Amino acid sequence: MGEFELIRRFFQHPLRPPGVALGNGDDCALLAPAPGQQLAVSTDMLVAGRHFLPDVAPEALGHKALAVNLSDLAAMGAEPVAFTLALALPHADEAWLAGFAQGLLALADAHGCALVGGDTTAGPLNLCLTVLGQVPTAQALRRDAAQPGDDLYVSGTLGDARLALMGLLGETDLPADTLAALRPRLERPSPRVALGQALRGVAHAAADLSDGLLGDLGHILRASGLVAELDVEHLLASAAVSDAVRAQPLATTLTCVLAGGDDYELVFSAPPSARTAVQAAAEHSGTPVSRIGRCLPLAPGQAPGSRLCDRHGRELALPPGVRLGGFDHFARAAG
Amino acid sequence: MGEFELIRRFFQHPLRPPGVALGNGDDCALLAPAPGQQLAVSTDMLVAGRHFLPDVAPEALGHKALAVNLSDLAAMGAEPVAFTLALALPHADEAWLAGFAQGLLALADAHGCALVGGDTTAGPLNLCLTVLGQVPTAQALRRDAAQPGDDLYVSGTLGDARLALMGLLGETDLPADTLAALRPRLERPSPRVALGQALRGVAHAAADLSDGLLGDLGHILRASGLVAELDVEHLLASAAVSDAVRAQPLATTLTCVLAGGDDYELVFSAPPSARTAVQAAAEHSGTPVSRIGRCLPLAPGQAPGSRLCDRHGRELALPPGVRLGGFDHFARAAG
Repeated sequence: MGEFELIRRFFQHPLRPPGVALGNGDDCALLAPAPGQQLAVSTDMLVAGRHFLPDVAPEALGHKALAVNLSDLAAMGAEPVAFTLALALPHADEAWLAGFAQGLLALADAHGCALVGGDTTAGPLNLCLTVLGQVPTAQALRRDAAQPGDDLYVSGTLGDARLALMGLLGETDLPADTLAALRPRLERPSPRVALGQALRGVAHAAADLSDGLLGDLGHILRASGLVAELDVEHLLASAAVSDAVRAQPLATTLTCVLAGGDDYELVFSAPPSARTAVQAAAEHSGTPVSRIGRCLPLAPGQAPGSRLCDRHGRELALPPGVRLGGFDHFARAAG
Repeated sequence: MGEFELIRRFFQHPLRPPGVALGNGDDCALLAPAPGQQLAVSTDMLVAGRHFLPDVAPEALGHKALAVNLSDLAAMGAEPVAFTLALALPHADEAWLAGFAQGLLALADAHGCALVGGDTTAGPLNLCLTVLGQVPTAQALRRDAAQPGDDLYVSGTLGDARLALMGLLGETDLPADTLAALRPRLERPSPRVALGQALRGVAHAAADLSDGLLGDLGHILRASGLVAELDVEHLLASAAVSDAVRAQPLATTLTCVLAGGDDYELVFSAPPSARTAVQAAAEHSGTPVSRIGRCLPLAPGQAPGSRLCDRHGRELALPPGVRLGGFDHFARAAG
């Protein structure tokens, strides 16, 4: 099976949303964003053994490869339009390709996002997707737009994917049914695309959670020049933490919730005056949302970042064993 | 050196052309194409040992990784706006990164094309670039727009990169000064961006030459439902073939010219009435252009493709040893 045959058999995608003027098969695809819209662009690369376990089901991998990119569009409040896929494969395994394409294109169809081009080559397994969406000019949810006094929210639940990974790697003992229930959160994340769009004009700033709450919230805080105060007791008791994560030893729970990685939820800020509108956006998009803290101005000499507090606002001494370090690919590679 | 430090040190790119509303540092970049423009998108992945020799100078690799993508924009007649870079590296080698970034960003600056995002991760060396350009609506040079009776042209010279590769691999004996003169054609190709834009409204169809003339012209012919008649004697005598390639044994010359790969020139069709306009576009963009054949309608039962002829229009029997097979990554991988 040659390169063109491989594309024809597995990656033909007839979907043509209005924003796509020319799909794959030429030197470039052509996109025609609607008038008054800007184009949001994001690229993610997934490497075997680093971003996914080598034995992951190909259908789940296809789903996840697109999901993590759609999550970036969600975090800007953008509507998905199209994506490109570059794929390096050690060899052209037909059953693997069929499963991968099925997972990939089912999620693409669900979000009206057309596969419009890319590249295939032989090489160590590597997936690189670039996703393109549209968002009305000046309405994107940027990281630098949080304001002092803003409430902080997260969507869904935090830490489930990390706990599933710990279970799969044998780092913690999980009952089989708990692992089975958590595993889709690691392998088939649901990008919060509808919520992101519903938050346009409501939220100030947003980011998606790929490296863990403290790390990704940190991007908002640095870009906006703020500190965050997170009431950890309230957070752990809230709907943002699932029963399975809450049932772990406290150090594990905190590691999963605060530095979990692979959540693909949104963290966002909105002014207290928008609380009703935030709830309306959550309901409209069918996405649970929890308020977890607030943004404060920087004190003189203070660095942007998160302060973890108890319910009385006192800075919290975390139990030993909590690993708050963000995920860093090269730190791991070097270590 | 962590991932964010690596990006900050080597891949900050202050260039902000008018089409870029938000550069890197957020979940997505934001592009704002000018009114009446469509966005052209192309993705290419380069794998060590397959698309470049492992010992290539990092500066040349940075140049080439962007050049092959800009060549796709050129083939659509699009103006470069922005690109994303995803990079998997076995380890963060500072000298290598500095050279790679220097070659990459120098070419980006030369074309006003801003690095607006991407990804870095540890993994087997792999470069994936997505390039974005703009082109006025309905003026893109598509592969399916060639017409019966069109002249066929190529830019620059064909086969130099292939001959350089053969020399580097020891597949042919080249004088050292010839190899030194050809090597930049392999390692530092010049994408024909200015020519592509100058051909808007002049040429009918265009493609860039990455896999060799017959293969890439074949894409135009299949998409347009045509055959091409190429006068090989005329082609070999024309400015489209350099003295170095012409000086090889005939089988080598023909392999390099017809199936060379890595040319990153343009092949395009234009009606005979546009001959003066084609020359004007060539002069305006400072790019040599040679007429090499013409497009004919399909005879009943005939398949799209190229016919190689002598100057009297008689089909040519090619000398033994000419390898016309197009480049196929998976065919090679399987072989």
